[in-house]
Parts: sequence; structure tokens; C-alpha cells
Amino acid sequence: MPKKTIGILGGMGPEATADLFLKIIRATPARTDQEHIRVLIDNNPAIPDRTAAILGRGPDPVPLLTRTARLLEQWGADLIVIPCNTAHYFHDQVQASVHVPVLHIMKETAAFLRERYPGLSAVGVLATTGTVRTGLYQRFLGERGLHALVPDDEGQQEVMDCIYGEHGVKAGHTGPEVTERLVRVAQSLVARGAGAVIAGCTELPIVLHDGDLPVPVIDPTRILAEAAVRAALE
Amino acid sequence: MPKKTIGILGGMGPEATADLFLKIIRATPARTDQEHIRVLIDNNPAIPDRTAAILGRGPDPVPLLTRTARLLEQWGADLIVIPCNTAHYFHDQVQASVHVPVLHIMKETAAFLRERYPGLSAVGVLATTGTVRTGLYQRFLGERGLHALVPDDEGQQEVMDCIYGEHGVKAGHTGPEVTERLVRVAQSLVARGAGAVIAGCTELPIVLHDGDLPVPVIDPTRILAEAAVRAALE
Repeated sequence: MPKKTIGILGGMGPEATADLFLKIIRATPARTDQEHIRVLIDNNPAIPDRTAAILGRGPDPVPLLTRTARLLEQWGADLIVIPCNTAHYFHDQVQASVHVPVLHIMKETAAFLRERYPGLSAVGVLATTGTVRTGLYQRFLGERGLHALVPDDEGQQEVMDCIYGEHGVKAGHTGPEVTERLVRVAQSLVARGAGAVIAGCTELPIVLHDGDLPVPVIDPTRILAEAAVRAALE
Repeated sequence: MPKKTIGILGGMGPEATADLFLKIIRATPARTDQEHIRVLIDNNPAIPDRTAAILGRGPDPVPLLTRTARLLEQWGADLIVIPCNTAHYFHDQVQASVHVPVLHIMKETAAFLRERYPGLSAVGVLATTGTVRTGLYQRFLGERGLHALVPDDEGQQEVMDCIYGEHGVKAGHTGPEVTERLVRVAQSLVARGAGAVIAGCTELPIVLHDGDLPVPVIDPTRILAEAAVRAALE
């Protein structure tokens, strides 16, 4: 059976790109190299910061996002995945720039939650301020009848600091200190009724794992990886 | 300062490709996404098995190796790295197919050992039977005045089984059982006088780490990553 080629529009950040790549490998039913899926990656860290752009404080990432998507398509990608939640604010523009499907991390995550946890009503969302402000998780969870709970201003600032701060994931810090700080913010969402918590920035599943909370921790990167593998093998 | 773009000729195997990618990210002095290096990856698992080809039992990987190298060059890679020790048997042919430099994992490893451990005389080599038969580590270590020690036939078979076997790394098994089996083989090399042991197949540093042996465990993937980052930033 011919397999499709997966293109990863990466670099946002590089660690999250490697994490998605590994999750694609591990989601693939393969016992030899040759049974694996071809994956083309453009890890292009020059793509401007998505959160800064959404908040009106930085350059527009769309030109480089769409250029990179077109390159991946030209190189032979049959479908494209983007390991950056915030970048999905620009999903429509990326999708419009290519002929191959660009999977949608929020849509896939909402569909997964509805199917896997039919009784769920409220879901916590840990994400960048950019992602929270776009309302993307709120919208796609809402479409599946799920209510999104986001941290208060102080908690949101703490999440941003765990991602972007001097001691955060993007600066290479992936130790237990970062995990503990995120767990404290997540616990406040559980106290408000969240029956699951989405680690909704691709840097977060690197430091926050299922089992760290009394409710399931949802890893959209893994859900996206599994969706990409299904699409490549179907 | 403009950074060069690194191309990874990958897929041999996918886990090793992700491992090299992560080691490049971690070897990069960067605190924001934008300070990282652009990395283009063609994870092409269809490249025929290198060990099988060298032993005369499988198809020639050179056509797909050179085609993939040319694609990476065409896509903008300024230098190329190959996360597969055994594939370096075909290094001259890959280098001849492109105009950009293709780093050499054995050359870099031998240079690193000579510089870091000036008093070293004998070095153990754990690698695929393909790599051992090619004599590549023996040759490049020899050029730096280092004597290569390889396992006896039984030990070599055990290394192959840890890589290719049903419970090996290529089948997704990266737990402590695999590590213990490799440590036993490596100990026999230390007993014969190895002052360091090279984890000389890119699947091996995934399961054998510095600290697992009484002598340093050398990770050529990390050495290659550091050499690529130096070349990209110089």
C-alpha cells in the first residue's frame, strides 16, 4: 500500500517540531525503517512569533507560513501539519495557499475529546495568550458542545512565563520546576470544574504529562500526530 | 550574522533522525525560536537497508541516498548530515553528488576523541555488522592513532539483535532491557582495554548513555550535531 508523505511546517519552536516528529514515528505501526512514513520537515525558526503578531506587537508570520507550506507541497508533501497551536489562527490562510490538506490541531483535539470522553462538559485550556485571545479552542470545543475554561490573568501570565520566560521551555528548560508551576495553574482549572486539561501549546506536552493531574492531560501534539498517520496510511 | 541551513538526510532510522534533530536543537546557543538554525529534514525510510547492501543481501541504497542529498541541496541546505553510521560507507558517493559539504560522522568522532582524550589508545566500537565489516571506524580511528576494538562474533550478533531484533530499537524498544544487553557486550571491550566505547550506530545512543559504563560512552550523533551547529554558525 503506497503511503502518503507528511510535511511538517515547523520551527515554532524547534523542540515542539521534534516532539511532533517523534510522536508521528511512534504512532506508526512499523517494525523496520522501511515500514515508516516519509516525513519532510522545514524547521524554519525565522517564522515570526505568532503570539506577538496576534497581540499586535510583532511582524506578520503569514508570508513565511504560506511560503513554507508551498515549499513542503512542492517537495512532495501530501498533507501538512503545523506543530504550533497559536499558528492555527492563520490556518485558513495557510490552507488557501496550498492544494494539499492542512490538518487542524484544534478541530482534531475537539473531535478526539468528544469521542473519547462522551460525558465531558468543561475542559481546561493551557495555551499562549495569543491562542487564548484568538478564542480558537473556545470555538472548536464549543462546536462539540464542550465549555472551555482558561486561567485568570495571573495564571495566564504564569503559563506564558513557563513557555517564554528565562526559565521556560523555549529557553531549553524542561525540568520538574516548570512542570510544578504548570500543575498549580491547571489545578485551579480543575477546581473550577475542568474534567480534562488541554496542554494547548506545543511546548507544554514536553513538560506536562498525563498523570500529572487528577484529570486527563490532553496532548494535542499526539492527537495531531495520530491524525497525520491515519491520513498518511488511509 | 546569517546562519547556514542544515540538511538532514534521514530515515535511517526515523528514531535516529529525530535524535540527531533534537541534538542539533540542544547544541544551538538560542533562547528564542528565532535564534535557532533552519533545519530541512527528508526522513525517507524507503532508503534500502545499508547493512544488508554491504553484506550483499539487499538492494543498493546509493541511488536514493544521492537523490535525497540532491533534493536537500536544491531545497536550500548549505551542509548535509547523515544520521546513520553505516550509510557512511557510501559517503564519497553522496559527497560527489552535491556541491555542499556532507559532514562525516567517523571523521568527526575520531577528531573529537583525539582532542578530548589525548591519552587514549584503544576504543571499543559497538556498531552494525555492516559498519564493522566496512572497517570505517577502524580506519578513521587509526588515522588518529587510536586502535579500534570490536566485539567477538557472539557479541556482534547481540548488538545486531539489540538494533534489528524483535525487541530491538528499530522495533521501538528503548527500555532498560536493551541497555543491559549492550552494557554486557561493551564490558567485554573494556576488559580488553577499551578506554572509551563508541555507540557507533545511530540507534545505540538512544539506549546506551554516558554513565552506563566505567569508561566514557561516546555518542557520534551528538558529536555530529555539534559539528553541524559549528558549521552552520561559523
